[in-house]
Amino acid sequence: MEKIKIKFPDGNVKEFDKGITSLEVAKSISSRLANEVLAATVNKEIWDLTRPINSDASIVLHKWDDVEAKHTFWHSSAHLMAEALESLYPGIKFGIGPSIENGFYYDVDPKEGITITESDLPKIETKMAELAGQNEHYSRKEVSKVDALKYFEQKGEEYKLELIQGLEDGKITFYSQGNFTDLCRGPHLPDTSPIKAIKLLSIAGAYWRGDEHNKQLTRIYGITFPKKKMLDDYLIFLEEAKKRDHRKLGKELELFTFSSKVGQGLPLWLPKGAMLRSRLENFLKEVQAKYGYDQVITPHIGQKELYITSGHYEKYGKDSFQPIHTPAEGEEFLLKPMNCPHHCEIYKSKPHSYKDLPLRYAEFGTVYRYEQSGELHGLTRVRGFTQDDAHIFCRPDQLKEEFIKVIDIILLIFKALDFKEFTTQISLRDPNDKTKYIGTDENWEKAERAIIEATEEKGIDTVVEYGEAAFYGPKLDFMVKDALGRKWQLGTIQVDYNLPESFELEYVGSDNQKHRPIMIHRAPFGSMERFVAVLIEHTAGEFPLWLNPKQVVVIPVSEKFNDYAKKILDSLKEKNISAEMDERNEKIGYKIREGEVQKIPYMIIVGEKEQAAGNISVRKHKKGDLGSLSLSDFIDNIEVEIKNKYYTTN
Amino acid sequence: MEKIKIKFPDGNVKEFDKGITSLEVAKSISSRLANEVLAATVNKEIWDLTRPINSDASIVLHKWDDVEAKHTFWHSSAHLMAEALESLYPGIKFGIGPSIENGFYYDVDPKEGITITESDLPKIETKMAELAGQNEHYSRKEVSKVDALKYFEQKGEEYKLELIQGLEDGKITFYSQGNFTDLCRGPHLPDTSPIKAIKLLSIAGAYWRGDEHNKQLTRIYGITFPKKKMLDDYLIFLEEAKKRDHRKLGKELELFTFSSKVGQGLPLWLPKGAMLRSRLENFLKEVQAKYGYDQVITPHIGQKELYITSGHYEKYGKDSFQPIHTPAEGEEFLLKPMNCPHHCEIYKSKPHSYKDLPLRYAEFGTVYRYEQSGELHGLTRVRGFTQDDAHIFCRPDQLKEEFIKVIDIILLIFKALDFKEFTTQISLRDPNDKTKYIGTDENWEKAERAIIEATEEKGIDTVVEYGEAAFYGPKLDFMVKDALGRKWQLGTIQVDYNLPESFELEYVGSDNQKHRPIMIHRAPFGSMERFVAVLIEHTAGEFPLWLNPKQVVVIPVSEKFNDYAKKILDSLKEKNISAEMDERNEKIGYKIREGEVQKIPYMIIVGEKEQAAGNISVRKHKKGDLGSLSLSDFIDNIEVEIKNKYYTTN
Repeated sequence: MEKIKIKFPDGNVKEFDKGITSLEVAKSISSRLANEVLAATVNKEIWDLTRPINSDASIVLHKWDDVEAKHTFWHSSAHLMAEALESLYPGIKFGIGPSIENGFYYDVDPKEGITITESDLPKIETKMAELAGQNEHYSRKEVSKVDALKYFEQKGEEYKLELIQGLEDGKITFYSQGNFTDLCRGPHLPDTSPIKAIKLLSIAGAYWRGDEHNKQLTRIYGITFPKKKMLDDYLIFLEEAKKRDHRKLGKELELFTFSSKVGQGLPLWLPKGAMLRSRLENFLKEVQAKYGYDQVITPHIGQKELYITSGHYEKYGKDSFQPIHTPAEGEEFLLKPMNCPHHCEIYKSKPHSYKDLPLRYAEFGTVYRYEQSGELHGLTRVRGFTQDDAHIFCRPDQLKEEFIKVIDIILLIFKALDFKEFTTQISLRDPNDKTKYIGTDENWEKAERAIIEATEEKGIDTVVEYGEAAFYGPKLDFMVKDALGRKWQLGTIQVDYNLPESFELEYVGSDNQKHRPIMIHRAPFGSMERFVAVLIEHTAGEFPLWLNPKQVVVIPVSEKFNDYAKKILDSLKEKNISAEMDERNEKIGYKIREGEVQKIPYMIIVGEKEQAAGNISVRKHKKGDLGSLSLSDFIDNIEVEIKNKYYTTN
Repeated sequence: MEKIKIKFPDGNVKEFDKGITSLEVAKSISSRLANEVLAATVNKEIWDLTRPINSDASIVLHKWDDVEAKHTFWHSSAHLMAEALESLYPGIKFGIGPSIENGFYYDVDPKEGITITESDLPKIETKMAELAGQNEHYSRKEVSKVDALKYFEQKGEEYKLELIQGLEDGKITFYSQGNFTDLCRGPHLPDTSPIKAIKLLSIAGAYWRGDEHNKQLTRIYGITFPKKKMLDDYLIFLEEAKKRDHRKLGKELELFTFSSKVGQGLPLWLPKGAMLRSRLENFLKEVQAKYGYDQVITPHIGQKELYITSGHYEKYGKDSFQPIHTPAEGEEFLLKPMNCPHHCEIYKSKPHSYKDLPLRYAEFGTVYRYEQSGELHGLTRVRGFTQDDAHIFCRPDQLKEEFIKVIDIILLIFKALDFKEFTTQISLRDPNDKTKYIGTDENWEKAERAIIEATEEKGIDTVVEYGEAAFYGPKLDFMVKDALGRKWQLGTIQVDYNLPESFELEYVGSDNQKHRPIMIHRAPFGSMERFVAVLIEHTAGEFPLWLNPKQVVVIPVSEKFNDYAKKILDSLKEKNISAEMDERNEKIGYKIREGEVQKIPYMIIVGEKEQAAGNISVRKHKKGDLGSLSLSDFIDNIEVEIKNKYYTTN
């Protein structure tokens, strides 16, 4: 028997018979592995486990935790759902049915007169479970274009026919399991047996090929797991995520709103949201002041010429908001997509010596970038957003220290905002193709080394990705894990050799010669919009006290004590504490319960006793009654708590 | 002799012979008045004092303090200069020669080969004085278009010919004095005798008719006065104004800059300017928080539809920055010229009860309005500026109280910023033409009464101007007098019935019916740009301590004490005190002198003695040495001073 060499991720190479499958390779290692493996990457392509390997190859075996395994699993589940649908709704026609980030969907077109609704989903789930229990095998078959067309013509599947028309002959494959056959590139599971837990989630309308001129098909979303427990956990997670959806909470907590008249994707920050945001901004401003940053303010537009110089016009020009013309003088302006060109012009406004550096210009700069309306999503995908931007202009010998300082700021913020888990990625040049990057080899090496050393010195766990750097410099990105375990990309630090070049920025060195400074772009929050969205979902709207736009509610026991309560309220406001008064004509118990529901950190209750003693009764959210206190003691305590929370949250 | 009736401003009517002149009327009152009077308004038109009045008329006699007198005086002075120029430069041709806000100019075209420069000005002044001493009479003559053309054709005055071509026959007048005759509408002084003090100020190039395709003429600026002392004072004022020019100081103090690449009229706020501005903003934010304002944040663009609803598109659309198109979806946005439409949309984002009102939405909102580049001027005339905007939505019965509160805020600011003198103007409806205003009679009367009563209650001196209200409501404007006695329009409070109507804003009243709220627009600073410009010119850059972006400079006596000085510096910065360190290798005396020149409020000097004792030596600007102090005492003192300065400056 002919032999082939299989190379494993750890570098080991083993010989196997030609035609061996990945599943058999797994079995040769251990039967447990064979049970857990769901897909394999063979020569960098994801393959069915049962597909024969006929030449030397590298192999990676994927278990559930790998995204490749999940996608194979869910793609197979989509086929399983299609088989169930065909059996329940004979004559149903199929569009496309891919795996997605969480689960899968299939676009289907039931026979004239038949509508599939949410109430049908349990029936389909049951059928899927029944078929899965039969351990149907997924088999792959290469077919000619003629045969492929013939097959779906006979079935009358117009959508599949349209898809096949667009494919190249010789590269068409069918996958079959049980009585169902689909046009499909694969890969799939060996059989349906691992699909142990099935949940169909929702139904939506979807135009064929996303074009509103086409027929609207029925899109059925589902998710499956190899274990029942996993599905249960996922459904709980889903429920929790729904409760925490920042769009829902943003409305309930009156943080922000959108107006169709102002325009899609352009948030209007309501008083409480603006307060939350400005506290975040002030927090960062204070931190940045300590780190030697200077705030600057620049306009929201710039001449087209500015962005031609910076290169942004080439990058954003065509796909973003179009130029603004003036009624006379023939000028053309653009809404700024980034703040950096403006900051470069500030740098250029006077000559600099090496002694002046580093200069750190910070701005909460609102930028505008066009996004298709279909792409917009709450505060996480908008058309106008405010970056907590800063640009550091420094000498090459200052790069590492500046990098460390920026990391310090980011870590401080994560700590203050209670993001306990985060990961980082260093994006470096592709060492095999240095031509696509701007800047000298020496500078790149210095910068890459500076970033690596900075993260090492800070003891940060990083993943290094080669070839992921921007063309203008290497970067470091921070991803935080929220309370639901979801990852969000937040802070970013980027080195830039390009803009100093394009804007011909200079400083006079100690050698009396002109040099180019290096620029660092950095945004610890990323953008205020995105960060607030993440914060809402992370905290479920239960913001730490110092950020909370509703810190205290004053509750008079009855109308008689409204004046006293009002005096308390005014004193709190005087001290910049966000307080409200609940003077509704409701029972005291009702008001306290509602304060708990609204998660207000402190409730102050005043009645006969308090008014007579000139003090207040205090309740803390989740902690209950704290007893009587003088107002000034309460204010002292809460002020300390607010102040401390900057650096530690619980 | 036929008689006519002359009505005086106080309502008195007297009979005079037909054909009497204003000068004779003045003489009939007192010879002193006749000596002082320079022009007259006859039937709402400004006339020569010597022009015969042939029918019943109203008359206002103007002395120097009236702007009408000044313009007559300076217009006559322009003719005097022209006469002098013609005598000194025979064959010189004249363009236009108007009076301006301060003085006059004449655009002239000397004969081929002759150039007039600054060094020629004294010679021209001397000639003017000589001619003025001859008490030449200004005489008015009506001429036909044919005769007018003939006269200037003979003189070869092509510019005058071009002007006459554009005039209507029968309405052309010449004025002559001495040997000089000019095409002119007048009015003029009776003779040159009041022109006692003459100063020609500068020379500039100016294209004929402001069109760069035409020939460039020589523009000579001058000013004249009836008394030598007035000129002396004016020249001192001019010198002082030049020193205080905010464009000059803005550059010297590194407060702001402009970039031709970013675009004209779009200020870039440098670190120190941004700090000054943010202190002003924070001050107002604090005050507003106490007055129950809520900060909101809205985008810098809005859909065209929003501005069609608000009426701003009709007002600004054609003459402002043109619409921004999106690459797809056919949307049209505009840079916002005002914040009010956005705030109306925030109001509309939820239903309101009468109990919720007043609502006060505040935003430091940056707006963009196109201005021709020739109109731009430093920070006072820009294309993008940040209004310290707020909109109060209230019930009719709350209007007066809200008005009073806004007045309180404005007065607080004037006090904190040391604007001791201000005047106000109430602009009401034209009682004779109520049709051009929106809103019911009842509401207007209520609003006008509310404003008048509010100013009365605050004891503010006001001028009431009828017919000056906006079509949407009455308003109150504040003008401050700066240190040089110049008046600047700053704060404004406007009542608005229109936008609540256009946006269909509502609240449910105590009667359970729907009502329209009233809107108040108000901006105490006006705009941050304009206010900072006025503040720079008012203070000559010597900002009150709490605003000063350079509060302290730390000066080590020699390099040996740099480390100790740096420690002091860091402690100050830690406390948010704007401190710098002067570590230049210069003598201590030199550094102190420069600190004085730079008007830095406090200098901290540290050397052997201070380091040993662990304290600091302090100097105060204009006060000198304050002796030794512990750093913590100094910080306590300066913190109190900064805090107190919010409300009283010296």
